[in-house]
Amino acid sequence: MKNLALLTDFYQLTMMNGYLNNNIHKDTVVFDMFFRKNPCDNGFTIIAGIEQMIEYIENLKFTEEDLDYIQSLGFDDLFINELRNFKFSGTIYGVKEGSVMFPGEPIIRVKATCFEAQLIETAILNIVNFQSLIATKASRICTAAKGDSVFEFGLRRAQGPDAGIYGARAAVIGGCSSTSNVLAGKMFDIPVVGTQAHSWIQTFDTELEAFRAYAKTYPDKCMLLVDTYDTIQSGVPNAITVFNELRQLGYEPRGIRIDSGDLAYLSKRARKMLDEAGFPNALIVASSDLDEDTIHSLKIQGAVINGWGVGTNLITSKDCPALGGVYKLAAVEKNNGLIPKIKISENPEKITNPGYKKVVRIYEKCSGKAQADLIMLEDEIIERNKPLTIFHPVYTWKKKVIANYEVRELLIPIFEEGILKYKKQSIQDIQNYVKEEISTLWPEYLRLKKPEFYKVDLSKKLWDLKQTMVNQYKESGEI
Amino acid sequence: MKNLALLTDFYQLTMMNGYLNNNIHKDTVVFDMFFRKNPCDNGFTIIAGIEQMIEYIENLKFTEEDLDYIQSLGFDDLFINELRNFKFSGTIYGVKEGSVMFPGEPIIRVKATCFEAQLIETAILNIVNFQSLIATKASRICTAAKGDSVFEFGLRRAQGPDAGIYGARAAVIGGCSSTSNVLAGKMFDIPVVGTQAHSWIQTFDTELEAFRAYAKTYPDKCMLLVDTYDTIQSGVPNAITVFNELRQLGYEPRGIRIDSGDLAYLSKRARKMLDEAGFPNALIVASSDLDEDTIHSLKIQGAVINGWGVGTNLITSKDCPALGGVYKLAAVEKNNGLIPKIKISENPEKITNPGYKKVVRIYEKCSGKAQADLIMLEDEIIERNKPLTIFHPVYTWKKKVIANYEVRELLIPIFEEGILKYKKQSIQDIQNYVKEEISTLWPEYLRLKKPEFYKVDLSKKLWDLKQTMVNQYKESGEI
Repeated sequence: MKNLALLTDFYQLTMMNGYLNNNIHKDTVVFDMFFRKNPCDNGFTIIAGIEQMIEYIENLKFTEEDLDYIQSLGFDDLFINELRNFKFSGTIYGVKEGSVMFPGEPIIRVKATCFEAQLIETAILNIVNFQSLIATKASRICTAAKGDSVFEFGLRRAQGPDAGIYGARAAVIGGCSSTSNVLAGKMFDIPVVGTQAHSWIQTFDTELEAFRAYAKTYPDKCMLLVDTYDTIQSGVPNAITVFNELRQLGYEPRGIRIDSGDLAYLSKRARKMLDEAGFPNALIVASSDLDEDTIHSLKIQGAVINGWGVGTNLITSKDCPALGGVYKLAAVEKNNGLIPKIKISENPEKITNPGYKKVVRIYEKCSGKAQADLIMLEDEIIERNKPLTIFHPVYTWKKKVIANYEVRELLIPIFEEGILKYKKQSIQDIQNYVKEEISTLWPEYLRLKKPEFYKVDLSKKLWDLKQTMVNQYKESGEI
Repeated sequence: MKNLALLTDFYQLTMMNGYLNNNIHKDTVVFDMFFRKNPCDNGFTIIAGIEQMIEYIENLKFTEEDLDYIQSLGFDDLFINELRNFKFSGTIYGVKEGSVMFPGEPIIRVKATCFEAQLIETAILNIVNFQSLIATKASRICTAAKGDSVFEFGLRRAQGPDAGIYGARAAVIGGCSSTSNVLAGKMFDIPVVGTQAHSWIQTFDTELEAFRAYAKTYPDKCMLLVDTYDTIQSGVPNAITVFNELRQLGYEPRGIRIDSGDLAYLSKRARKMLDEAGFPNALIVASSDLDEDTIHSLKIQGAVINGWGVGTNLITSKDCPALGGVYKLAAVEKNNGLIPKIKISENPEKITNPGYKKVVRIYEKCSGKAQADLIMLEDEIIERNKPLTIFHPVYTWKKKVIANYEVRELLIPIFEEGILKYKKQSIQDIQNYVKEEISTLWPEYLRLKKPEFYKVDLSKKLWDLKQTMVNQYKESGEI
């Protein structure tokens, strides 16, 4: 990974220097990263990018060139020396990569000096926001594809090289089977796929000649792009000709790809032609401005498509190209104790949850399904043998008593006082973990349109703390 | 720049190997990069990323690790050796960074062996699509801001590190004055800006204490964030207190930033309070989910805002997060001559323009304004002393005769047979060039809503060639 020490907002530097100048730079603070809204109106968000966040923190070091640049911006030697010796020594808890999370919940909790915690805000948000966005979008597309393979094809429309690379990773975490992106394939051990473009077909004098040339090079994995001239009149008949020639040589063709036109109509016609020609196992892959809505609609129309190549709409999450994750101060250490902090807003949903917190998921014992999440203060304990009463944080009369439950803490150690505690996983294991996580959700939360809201409640103790702080603010005008 | 040799779609490798296997890998081909639609329904597109494309091509080399990986995907030694010796030796013409371009026009023209031209497709599109998108979006936002400073603040919501870095560059090319992104500031010599976040205010016991601590560190550039608790009741009065204290020490404050709430109302109230307190020169900067529409609307409402910090909506071009640039085969060399190639589609707008082409811009001599662009075959010459007849490529009866014009060729040499010919420029020079380019357009093309379509016509010779090829295809079913 390249040197990303300067991948931060300038105000982090001005604040760090200000903390230093006011001699409070070693004060411990707690920040929570959370988001307020699932992307694409999904019922949940898949968290991805934890491992890249770790790499960023592990490699966080200012080079002399960085320091020269910062000095050129007007900072003094005291600050430059403090940066020269910078090494992250704080404690970060976070969810496991691939976790399913909901609005308002702490995903990453940073406890560090304000000097350190402030520096890393921007990069953490940048890394985790984007990968979580794409993992979630991919999950939606894979849900619509109902078990068919989905291929990530978006590199040419990704928002720069990293967006292509980390977007491909996130897409596979979210459920895609493979990517066209060779560099992502190498970096993350993701299967890479691809055959030929229209330019291959056009380079030869005729389509048939182009197909034959491709089949000659790849007799055992021959997938042909059939829409360069006319899918039904020319592409599929020429493909069948070549498939027959391959079969005579002892090879079975892989199938065809359709990249334009009415995919429902063309796939049905092509399927019939392939079946009648004796190639019922030849796959039909489609690509052409696909997203979850189009795939869902094509399925309803009876399109006979075995695999879906998805580009722009996936790699940019086109209908919702940002996850609005934020990083908010939750507590400040004073006299060896953590003083909770709250951010007030006229908009009640934007008032933060104060204090040093954790988040737990309550599972129904008999079904293993998740019932609700509870945000609590770190030192609270759930007495697991007693029924648990949870309540809506706004409509507090909405109560629910849960018995026979399991509890799981979602925030696990990532760094403890600067020491890495998180074990990285293979991309396949992360993808499997996502599937496991999703399998614990009732179907109502998995719908692509208007999913039910999953319950995220506050513990009584946290709720009381928040009310007290809000009231205190309303009286004094300040916290 | 990191090693991006593998930043390509896998099908480029399968095709390259296929060309090699069919012994046509040294055949020269011509590809055009162009787009079909301006982003955000803008009247034009600003092209950016040319210099990063150049860096990519200059650094294009497969490492042994890359080659091992490719070999592991099933390719043979012949191909691996060809890649080991890969060095781009083709000719690339393209527009100058910061050029204003229109749908259908060649932006980048690659003439190289099919082996080379195919490899670089994906990265060229990735790099130029994204930066052009953001430069164009930034230009829209700056147009709405009518000369006020616009600050790029989006790093935390950018689609990964590169999107933040190159997005900041493109935003400045499009007209932003500065960025919050320190790394982009260092890499491209862009001014960086930023002061403090809500967390700074919250870290202190009171807002006033937080303001004083900031003013102490930065007495000569004190800009205060006033919306943490209550902008009018608390933030602005506290800022004025600190501004008065600063003035007693001989410093003039810089101003305030408002990051939430009704920016029209708050800015007017704050302006009045600052003026009455004797600080008519204190700036009011706003940030809060801004885009060109909101800025335009706030201006109409009489908001008194001097600078605009724009984040998510700019760095992701949220309403239109991809420029759909494509890279299409235009010609293939056969027997030392270039044979034009065309891609047919049922959708007439998707039929490509065949042949080895150039694009010229026709300027009205008296006003210096651009009249139309003309896509022509490379060897065509415009006789500048004769009136020029141009016509609409579909409604051919729409004709126009132009006299007293200047002509400029838009494609300039970037690489000639692998040798770099393009001279890189400072970001400030590129930004100025964009302004120059925009100043040659009539206001009708600059409107943010429903701009007039700028004329992009084909020369008679190119139009005839295209018609002939389309008809030939319609008769034979193949080109």
